[in-house]
Amino acid sequence: MTHLAKRMSGVQASAIREILKVTERPDVLSFAGGLPAPEAFPVAAIAQAHADVLAKDAAAALQYGPTEGYGPLRAWVAERMTWRGRPSRAEQVLITAGAQQGIDLVGKALIDPGDTVVVEAPSYLAALQSFSTCEARFATVPSDEQGMCTDALERVLREERPRLIYLVPNFQNPRGTTLPLERRLQIARLAAEHEVMVLEDDPYGELRYRGKALPPIAGLVPGAPVIHLGSFSKTLAPGLRLGYAVADEPLIRALTIAKQAADLHTGSLSQRAVARLFEIFDYEAHLRELRRLYGERLEAMLASLDRFLPPGSQWTRPEGGLFVWVRLPRGLDAQALLGDAMRERVAFVPGAPFYPADPCKETLRLNFSNRPPALIGEGMARLGACVSARLRQDARAEEALALAAP
Amino acid sequence: MTHLAKRMSGVQASAIREILKVTERPDVLSFAGGLPAPEAFPVAAIAQAHADVLAKDAAAALQYGPTEGYGPLRAWVAERMTWRGRPSRAEQVLITAGAQQGIDLVGKALIDPGDTVVVEAPSYLAALQSFSTCEARFATVPSDEQGMCTDALERVLREERPRLIYLVPNFQNPRGTTLPLERRLQIARLAAEHEVMVLEDDPYGELRYRGKALPPIAGLVPGAPVIHLGSFSKTLAPGLRLGYAVADEPLIRALTIAKQAADLHTGSLSQRAVARLFEIFDYEAHLRELRRLYGERLEAMLASLDRFLPPGSQWTRPEGGLFVWVRLPRGLDAQALLGDAMRERVAFVPGAPFYPADPCKETLRLNFSNRPPALIGEGMARLGACVSARLRQDARAEEALALAAP
Repeated sequence: MTHLAKRMSGVQASAIREILKVTERPDVLSFAGGLPAPEAFPVAAIAQAHADVLAKDAAAALQYGPTEGYGPLRAWVAERMTWRGRPSRAEQVLITAGAQQGIDLVGKALIDPGDTVVVEAPSYLAALQSFSTCEARFATVPSDEQGMCTDALERVLREERPRLIYLVPNFQNPRGTTLPLERRLQIARLAAEHEVMVLEDDPYGELRYRGKALPPIAGLVPGAPVIHLGSFSKTLAPGLRLGYAVADEPLIRALTIAKQAADLHTGSLSQRAVARLFEIFDYEAHLRELRRLYGERLEAMLASLDRFLPPGSQWTRPEGGLFVWVRLPRGLDAQALLGDAMRERVAFVPGAPFYPADPCKETLRLNFSNRPPALIGEGMARLGACVSARLRQDARAEEALALAAP
Repeated sequence: MTHLAKRMSGVQASAIREILKVTERPDVLSFAGGLPAPEAFPVAAIAQAHADVLAKDAAAALQYGPTEGYGPLRAWVAERMTWRGRPSRAEQVLITAGAQQGIDLVGKALIDPGDTVVVEAPSYLAALQSFSTCEARFATVPSDEQGMCTDALERVLREERPRLIYLVPNFQNPRGTTLPLERRLQIARLAAEHEVMVLEDDPYGELRYRGKALPPIAGLVPGAPVIHLGSFSKTLAPGLRLGYAVADEPLIRALTIAKQAADLHTGSLSQRAVARLFEIFDYEAHLRELRRLYGERLEAMLASLDRFLPPGSQWTRPEGGLFVWVRLPRGLDAQALLGDAMRERVAFVPGAPFYPADPCKETLRLNFSNRPPALIGEGMARLGACVSARLRQDARAEEALALAAP
């Protein structure tokens, strides 16, 4: 038996990825993964961009490149971030292997063993995993329908002196909630006041289907220490593994050193292909189409939940992103329900693994981006039937217990 | 000023990458980088493979994929490793973002702060960097013309109780040396006896220009704990960022969990494109051509060093890989020489940063893969002139000192 490093002892294989191995069987109607719709991948443009780069620029696109990333792609990100509300220069951008690598590099560069990281409960599972490999302690802040509760945050900052606040401001994974402007401002101010870094993980920010776009926390309060993470996984394609970190230059330098040791640099060909894609492709039209497609699926899911889930069930009503979060009635256990659901060939992810501690077992996460409305309806009908059956079963069991009572 | 994690305090931006920013100016004839020859990239096959995958399999190639890697590519690596002497199954392969990520994941999974890692002096710089982020201590073992001295290794194993032995068995970076079979066997036996993991980093193994291929340490002694790392960076193209780790399944599982937290998985498109490339491309013929091209460049460099370096200079005579290691005569300082050389528009990397401690300042590393023979001759002529000029200057200074003496 190989002796593993202590930092690995708190880290399990992602419960979700293990669940996905079962739920992604082709005969199962799965709402478990966080998969974008493959029919929305801009395949022709991606193919053209790769062909162009390999025709015109192969020597550089296939060679080693700078750790910081490909200059024109860094410049594109800086311009987009500026437009979204965080004035940025290319030097403040690090290209990463997806936003996940951004999370990991921030942990590596900033968190010492025993340091406290503030997270929402529930929170993005793979971020918890990554911080665990830095041997972080977690302090949880409760969330309501508007995301992280900032009053509770202030208390935690005073009492726990954390090193980092991690959050997903837009259409949070797993709950789908969005932080309103006043909470964003408050978090930025608290971060500046308590000198604690905010890690604003924003992979879904461009995927808003209702309501008005809100500025990133990173741009709200001058001097507030914020690292902003973004991704091309949800708007272009996850298989390219491209994301970015935006922060002040000293931080970008520290993250760059961490990245150098981690993988030297992100793929040169992928970076140049995406930079080329932005020249030949109407990205805004693509985003509009993606928002239309996913917005329709979100509406289909909310309508199907209304129709098929029994009374007492609750769920979030996100304005964007990929996920709806459900709370089952009367203390039903989502993990047990998954067994019933799999027999009916419908799948979801139980909510428990998203909690760093004290999981709420009657919760589950549903993804709506990966299936068309008709299949969403069919899936929610099956799920609703499973929930109702469980409720009847529990009611019968209670009745039997009551009859058996003296 | 942001407070960085303690693990970052021992890690500098790679001295080499900082040097490369200066030496890779287009007017400089640089032998500093470790760059493959871009004219040898199989551009047409890479372009065809990407086009094929995006035409036939875009939905999967652009989607999230398993952390372990793309099945057919894992199977290809397993087959090749079996043929090279380490019988392997696909389940014993993890696809990584270059061999560099393999090094980083091994450190993360196995090394606790304060653990000792045995390295050669000099050793691959970015491995030292990566182990530093795990807060490793280094124990160095001297090397001779045949690589790591195994007698000294045995002593270090007894005295230091290390967690890991890191080495590059074939055409080492930076020295170009190759471990003979008897040392490989001895290292495998020592590792089994002392229960210490060997990390066999083999990015250059397929690039042998003279002599007979030797089996990887990983396949020599049943039960010896060895992780083997390989790369497609030197044989196909570094810009794809594809490498692999081969080890027993419990270790691959641990590395997979570490990778999941680091970047979820390696790019699906790159992995599938390379798997496709192996179907449509004569890889063996490509390797033969690469060996011919680089072998010719190695010969040109050795001949030019013979011709242009002044007496008292010494250098290695590698059988493969990308690098020759030079020791300057009479204690000349390679860092000071670099200043002279840059004025003559020729560049190399001083050897000092490759030493974890006690650098030997009269050493330098030369890359021969990135320039054709004529430019290698021209570059070595310029370098030789700089060395000779320094020697004359030093001799004059000594003479003046002697004259001034009473």
